[in-house]
Amino acid sequence: MKTGVCYYPEHWPEARWVVDAAHMRNLGLSMVRIGEFAWSRLEPAAGQYQFDWLTRAIDTLSDAGLEVILGTPTATPPAWLIRNHPQVLAVDENGQVRDFGSRRHYCFSSELYREHCERIVTELATRYGRHDGITAWQTDNEYGCHSTSISYSSAALSAFQKWCERQYNGIDALNLAWGNVFWSMEYSNFSEIGLPVGTVTESNPAHRMAFWRFSSTQITSFNKLQVDIIKKHAPGRDVVHNFMGNFVEFDHFEVADDLDVASWDNYPLGFLTRDGTNPEDQKTFLRTGHPDSSAFHHDLYRACGKGRMWLMEQQPGPVNWAPFNPAPLPGMVRLWGWEAFAHGAELVSYFRWRQLPFGQEQMHAALLLPDGRDDDAAHEVKQLAEDIRKVLSLNINVDVSPAPVALVFDYAGDQAARIQQPDGQNYDPLVFMQNIYSVVRQLGVRVDIVPTTATMDDYKLIILANCSVSDGALAMKLKQSNAHILMFPRTGSKTTECAIPDQLPPGDFQQLIDLKVTRVETLPKAIRMTTKNNVQVVDWRERVEATFPAEDAFEDGWGFHFQQKQVHYINACPDRASLLSLLQARLNECGIHSLNLGDGLRIMQRGELSMAFNYGPDEVLVTEEIQQHFCNENPSRVILGQPLLQAGDLCAWTGSATESTSTDG
Amino acid sequence: MKTGVCYYPEHWPEARWVVDAAHMRNLGLSMVRIGEFAWSRLEPAAGQYQFDWLTRAIDTLSDAGLEVILGTPTATPPAWLIRNHPQVLAVDENGQVRDFGSRRHYCFSSELYREHCERIVTELATRYGRHDGITAWQTDNEYGCHSTSISYSSAALSAFQKWCERQYNGIDALNLAWGNVFWSMEYSNFSEIGLPVGTVTESNPAHRMAFWRFSSTQITSFNKLQVDIIKKHAPGRDVVHNFMGNFVEFDHFEVADDLDVASWDNYPLGFLTRDGTNPEDQKTFLRTGHPDSSAFHHDLYRACGKGRMWLMEQQPGPVNWAPFNPAPLPGMVRLWGWEAFAHGAELVSYFRWRQLPFGQEQMHAALLLPDGRDDDAAHEVKQLAEDIRKVLSLNINVDVSPAPVALVFDYAGDQAARIQQPDGQNYDPLVFMQNIYSVVRQLGVRVDIVPTTATMDDYKLIILANCSVSDGALAMKLKQSNAHILMFPRTGSKTTECAIPDQLPPGDFQQLIDLKVTRVETLPKAIRMTTKNNVQVVDWRERVEATFPAEDAFEDGWGFHFQQKQVHYINACPDRASLLSLLQARLNECGIHSLNLGDGLRIMQRGELSMAFNYGPDEVLVTEEIQQHFCNENPSRVILGQPLLQAGDLCAWTGSATESTSTDG
Amino acid sequence: MKTGVCYYPEHWPEARWVVDAAHMRNLGLSMVRIGEFAWSRLEPAAGQYQFDWLTRAIDTLSDAGLEVILGTPTATPPAWLIRNHPQVLAVDENGQVRDFGSRRHYCFSSELYREHCERIVTELATRYGRHDGITAWQTDNEYGCHSTSISYSSAALSAFQKWCERQYNGIDALNLAWGNVFWSMEYSNFSEIGLPVGTVTESNPAHRMAFWRFSSTQITSFNKLQVDIIKKHAPGRDVVHNFMGNFVEFDHFEVADDLDVASWDNYPLGFLTRDGTNPEDQKTFLRTGHPDSSAFHHDLYRACGKGRMWLMEQQPGPVNWAPFNPAPLPGMVRLWGWEAFAHGAELVSYFRWRQLPFGQEQMHAALLLPDGRDDDAAHEVKQLAEDIRKVLSLNINVDVSPAPVALVFDYAGDQAARIQQPDGQNYDPLVFMQNIYSVVRQLGVRVDIVPTTATMDDYKLIILANCSVSDGALAMKLKQSNAHILMFPRTGSKTTECAIPDQLPPGDFQQLIDLKVTRVETLPKAIRMTTKNNVQVVDWRERVEATFPAEDAFEDGWGFHFQQKQVHYINACPDRASLLSLLQARLNECGIHSLNLGDGLRIMQRGELSMAFNYGPDEVLVTEEIQQHFCNENPSRVILGQPLLQAGDLCAWTGSATESTSTDG
Repeated sequence: MKTGVCYYPEHWPEARWVVDAAHMRNLGLSMVRIGEFAWSRLEPAAGQYQFDWLTRAIDTLSDAGLEVILGTPTATPPAWLIRNHPQVLAVDENGQVRDFGSRRHYCFSSELYREHCERIVTELATRYGRHDGITAWQTDNEYGCHSTSISYSSAALSAFQKWCERQYNGIDALNLAWGNVFWSMEYSNFSEIGLPVGTVTESNPAHRMAFWRFSSTQITSFNKLQVDIIKKHAPGRDVVHNFMGNFVEFDHFEVADDLDVASWDNYPLGFLTRDGTNPEDQKTFLRTGHPDSSAFHHDLYRACGKGRMWLMEQQPGPVNWAPFNPAPLPGMVRLWGWEAFAHGAELVSYFRWRQLPFGQEQMHAALLLPDGRDDDAAHEVKQLAEDIRKVLSLNINVDVSPAPVALVFDYAGDQAARIQQPDGQNYDPLVFMQNIYSVVRQLGVRVDIVPTTATMDDYKLIILANCSVSDGALAMKLKQSNAHILMFPRTGSKTTECAIPDQLPPGDFQQLIDLKVTRVETLPKAIRMTTKNNVQVVDWRERVEATFPAEDAFEDGWGFHFQQKQVHYINACPDRASLLSLLQARLNECGIHSLNLGDGLRIMQRGELSMAFNYGPDEVLVTEEIQQHFCNENPSRVILGQPLLQAGDLCAWTGSATESTSTDG
Repeated sequence: MKTGVCYYPEHWPEARWVVDAAHMRNLGLSMVRIGEFAWSRLEPAAGQYQFDWLTRAIDTLSDAGLEVILGTPTATPPAWLIRNHPQVLAVDENGQVRDFGSRRHYCFSSELYREHCERIVTELATRYGRHDGITAWQTDNEYGCHSTSISYSSAALSAFQKWCERQYNGIDALNLAWGNVFWSMEYSNFSEIGLPVGTVTESNPAHRMAFWRFSSTQITSFNKLQVDIIKKHAPGRDVVHNFMGNFVEFDHFEVADDLDVASWDNYPLGFLTRDGTNPEDQKTFLRTGHPDSSAFHHDLYRACGKGRMWLMEQQPGPVNWAPFNPAPLPGMVRLWGWEAFAHGAELVSYFRWRQLPFGQEQMHAALLLPDGRDDDAAHEVKQLAEDIRKVLSLNINVDVSPAPVALVFDYAGDQAARIQQPDGQNYDPLVFMQNIYSVVRQLGVRVDIVPTTATMDDYKLIILANCSVSDGALAMKLKQSNAHILMFPRTGSKTTECAIPDQLPPGDFQQLIDLKVTRVETLPKAIRMTTKNNVQVVDWRERVEATFPAEDAFEDGWGFHFQQKQVHYINACPDRASLLSLLQARLNECGIHSLNLGDGLRIMQRGELSMAFNYGPDEVLVTEEIQQHFCNENPSRVILGQPLLQAGDLCAWTGSATESTSTDG
Repeated sequence: MKTGVCYYPEHWPEARWVVDAAHMRNLGLSMVRIGEFAWSRLEPAAGQYQFDWLTRAIDTLSDAGLEVILGTPTATPPAWLIRNHPQVLAVDENGQVRDFGSRRHYCFSSELYREHCERIVTELATRYGRHDGITAWQTDNEYGCHSTSISYSSAALSAFQKWCERQYNGIDALNLAWGNVFWSMEYSNFSEIGLPVGTVTESNPAHRMAFWRFSSTQITSFNKLQVDIIKKHAPGRDVVHNFMGNFVEFDHFEVADDLDVASWDNYPLGFLTRDGTNPEDQKTFLRTGHPDSSAFHHDLYRACGKGRMWLMEQQPGPVNWAPFNPAPLPGMVRLWGWEAFAHGAELVSYFRWRQLPFGQEQMHAALLLPDGRDDDAAHEVKQLAEDIRKVLSLNINVDVSPAPVALVFDYAGDQAARIQQPDGQNYDPLVFMQNIYSVVRQLGVRVDIVPTTATMDDYKLIILANCSVSDGALAMKLKQSNAHILMFPRTGSKTTECAIPDQLPPGDFQQLIDLKVTRVETLPKAIRMTTKNNVQVVDWRERVEATFPAEDAFEDGWGFHFQQKQVHYINACPDRASLLSLLQARLNECGIHSLNLGDGLRIMQRGELSMAFNYGPDEVLVTEEIQQHFCNENPSRVILGQPLLQAGDLCAWTGSATESTSTDG
């Protein structure tokens, strides 16, 4: 694993560049991302290019032995472009233009903007595509950030109407597919179609689902436009994009399909108030981040990148954009780096090199202070690089092997579950999904996150937690597998057009288990339902009609937990403690050893290497027993740190993995 | 009482219609509402009518012995109409057009839209007015739903200016009436008048009150346009509109004045988070609805319908639109039907026949599941029909007789109390009114809700709880009656122009009691004021100047509860427990027997029939003593159910009513 | 000190004026403000003036012996002006025009509106400038009320672009100063500059700071336009404006610089929910207002008025505009008047004479009831006038002398701290500042509030609590003073362009103390950090690098409280109890006697006169010891009231001041 950093030569005096480059090397960094917000410096006026400074910057970094990742600057079109062509701006849900003055001020559907992007990316790619110092390219920056996935501009309307025309075989087919006979919403022709916004009450779920699919597709094609240019002119270089955390506004598998690597931007403390962590845990993990948030995204984006995953931006200290921005616990910058390594990251790159004293992010910490001296993270990053080098020099096997458990992730399924949010305000499908992931990880078991289209032959347990959309191909594949299957509420509850399936939920997944959901109810936070086996249920409950008895039942007679052979259907949302029991039983059933690690301790393996991380506030001893649960050697060999872990600390030991392969006791 | 259902033949294959009709009969249903959202199927393009399918649908239902209620489709103008004439759309308070894509996308003030409505209603009325199978017509659907009572369109502005010109004798008279000299708000002519929206700080209360009256009038005339057409072509048929619950955005008495029957749409569980029920009660009544919410509306709309009241839409299971949508307790669908009967409903019609798998309401339960099989409600509805038939076959007197207590309901008074909402954010006049109703009902006493214009000669106690507007005619009528009078805070506190009366509040009601309100104060939730007699007061308190001593006083010396002869003025908002004591004393004073039934038990009478309903979570025994409190026979004769009531259960017994007529002990 | 009242002759029959004037005199009032909302009566149509009524009103008041303060009516342009020239309206942050129908519906940047103001003010000033009965003029009314300091109109855009052009030496200089290279925000010319609104994510802090400075300047020049006209035609009269409480949206020192007197509008109960008072204290002080809120503003506006301060509007009873509007405790109207006197007010004028039964403020109490009889405040105001006369007749020294402690107040500093509000949502710089003031006052010590430009030679302790902007001149002045200096977090943390200073915070204040702030963190409400000396810290914490050890430290090793000679830097936000200890220690260190008066008791001095006020709910005894702490006489001489103070009561005693001059004991 390499370490790197995000750098903005245009922000600093040129004389400083060489000093910075040398110091980067000194900290063990080997990759530098540059250029992604520099359009106004590359093209200060229409068609007047200034590439000299960029060439000098690349050369300076390259000469110092750093690999350069060059970003396209399309997230920040300059003022002259916007003032000349205001029609490229996006429009928000209130019909307000989203104006120049920050970043991401463009609409993905603007053909004119795409032309400008094509032009500037071509200029860059033809100039620098074969530069030896540049080993990777980044397209744009954080697609969708600041709620920019969706635009309600007239360009979007026009593109959406055309998209509908391509998707449906005539307006009658669209009316039928969307159920527009309801409330006389039928259209006479495609030009009558509007955007699902500004309606008197909620718009048609089918309409919203179609607009989401369209908007996701627009991002995919916007990205592909750049990828194609870069691929043509920069052969052999990795093309990446930096995705975000806790973000499901478009189908990341689709966009990543055109990339070589999926990279993502990880701000564990900033995410703490956004990822559904409850207030009590927000206090506990204030300075460490949630123990499973980074891990979840590492595994998700490794899936998006078909095995190749980078951290393009990693938090080095307090950030500026969350409601509250505490400092990380000392050691956490190093720990987060190790966690990334544990999940197979090829690169951890920090955001940013030096805290900038001006602009919107001036309160965002960096490796260096605004005055150019080292901040705390510099030391931890340096130590991380040394750690990694030391461990890898032992020549142990650190291959990333498949996990025993697969968690199927479906962006469209997530979206379908959001579209009728009012029925069940407490139910966030991404939070629910992360909770499942977190529980399995707390049980000491590795999880692969996989798209619905993945091959899933080798998993012992496959979990469906956001597969709201009925999917015959997936159902067939699961039916043919030997894995145990665990489905959660809403599975297969909608068709691709966001309607209830004819055969009732779980739709096509009835191939796996012979039951029908005949009613759902949503519950306020203050209500908990309890089953005979004392499972506590919150938020959401389904009434199931089955040809066989339930494993458990609520006091009012509704059944809970349906099992047919090795397929399970959980028809309500258990609280965390109940989830833990239910999942432990499933793991046991599949012959997967589990070990409840408690709230703050987490353990991850790569090949023969096991790593333990303490995210909790108290010290934890990684006992011999715990060590041996994860490896076959006795005694195990601790090669990094000590088993008595302070808060924010980690240790590692070697031994071949046991977890997912053994099936005996 | 008949039972019925809302049906959408246009949503289902024609072959299914006859099956559905037969099954409706099988469930004991006798009326079916259809057509009210079908404009795009009746007129798929401008002037191209398609009535064949509707004729076949009506005939199918009619042939099965079902009476049809035909709805006009004006709540859902089709896409072609809107795209051709976008000026018919309403505009919201932010100046945004409320666009096509759901329903109710029209402005009541659009003359052009009224022409289209006139046209389509005439087409329907001339075709079907004399059809034997159609026994009633419904105008439009849920006027005002989704905040559509008010529109800030240019059509509304223009109509409002003309309305002002008709209302006032010149612009000087308007300036004087509104007090426009304040803040130099005077107009030079009617064309300078704006809408009370988008102002820098709040607009003039008089301006808002006038705009509310205007907006209410627009709905009245919009409705009357349709009624007149229907009445002309469909002689002898009932014309109804389906009003909503917890809804006071226009004067329902005024609109209902042109109708034969006031029908309303009752969603007891959906209302629970909207009707001011406190969080603890929301838990208690999660699956039953508030014990007095349905009853209150039954009595209110029976008053609107001058004695004739229908339930056009009754909740059959979980709905889709509330923040949380639990399933009703088994038995509640039947119980709600009985409660409607108890209050004199002529019809209880369920919404809807079959759960629709697509569109905005796909998560709204029905009598049938989406796959066409019976859902739970089907069985309860069938039992209800059988119950009713059985009880009515006993030939006991079930006449709806006047109640001993009248609660005066004034829509303008409610509105006047809302207009300066900031002074007292916790005070909702409708919630306050419902609380009064609920307390009297908990005391086992029936309440009639009456408009200010009603004859009130026979009541023993008349309560004014939202009569904020000083009303000389009402005051005179009350002065001449023999009833005891109970007034609550804000009574007579405003003129019709939303100013403070010259003689100070309670304005003209000073004819009844010789006092003046010289000061009001509003209190935060955390503050309770206590009187010497331990009355707990929240939210709102008035300082009263009177020529006679108060019955009670606050610790700081402000008087509380003023009585002169049989007129009482309560000058603050007591909490529920204190209200209960105060009202029990008033009932006693009038010779009305009361009996505190507790939180969940409610008892209602029609003629010789007494019915007990258990809305609470625990079982309740309706003892012999309780039974006899409500009837004269000893022992009473239980003719339905058992006196030991489980949650959600009911029983009935016979005996002539005692409650309101006896005046002895 | 005089007492006065706000009067609106245009609201009442002319025959009443003489009655009112006589009664004003009877209540001891000597000044009357009139005219400030009367434009529609002075100019009912364009250019058609009607001054007769105003002349008669002025003469009536004047003849009764009342001094008139004449207001310019520019806060309420009439309907004809707006309908003819809608471009004078302001535009809000959503691009919505802020329309006619209340008040303050104009944009400070509209040149056309300025012409109209110039015209109407000239008409008034030439007619009445030398009228003997008019002793003062008020410009407009409450600049900035209802969020009107800022407008996003095209007039504002154009004026802002011109302002930028004057401020910066070319567009490159502006780009550099604002750091526009970040996110490619560079402009090619001034006409590309937009307003900092409607951007995709937050706009550049430098951009916002510049726009705030511009907007503040617009108010200054708008005010000066009127002042110049009045000064020209009304020689010798005081020109005042009535500022608001808890309001920092423009630089009040700048605007007040052109005025003779700074007056302000004091609503102690209305402010209680706006001034950061915590919920528990909101209950305690529900009917008295916060014990330090009035005092803080008195001292702030005395500074703005260079020693001359008036209360133009003082609350007389419940108001209409706060979330909750309780009645004041009996006695508070008198007490608030005395508190104003204690802080050097020359006038306390009540808002308003008589409660108006119509218009937006109809629920706002007054000295008289709507029916023209006295309300409670009338009696208290009369007593106040008699009290004051009685005490002043004793011929004791009541000079307002400088306080021992100075609190530096910097409007730009406050604004700079707000601009990146997301980092630390709980930190409100004005609330923090008021808390510091409150703690010193609770310790029985007087505080002067001073602008950064003040001479500060005579203070013993100078406190910087909102001086976020690095200020070399201030730093130099403090370095040269003998005072002890106490700086709070964020001091000097930004440049004038809202960037981090090159030398890191506290920027130029490093001249005073040799430390650097290298990191800040913001904390959620649930988190408290504790130091070894048990200081409790909330909200905000800074990591400091210093050449000397800290006085205290947090458990995680961050230092707390840095002292070098007599300069202190407090690098976090202590809670109130900790602040009290810290400030008591500082006062002691400077030789200032302090005495913790507890929550509700406050004592203030003018010359030989000491006054004690009980804002708390319980009775308090002002012991001999307490009395003598504030004066040198033994025994002291109580000349007003009794030392045993009931809630809402006050007393006064004489003796030369001790507090700030003694340094022993």
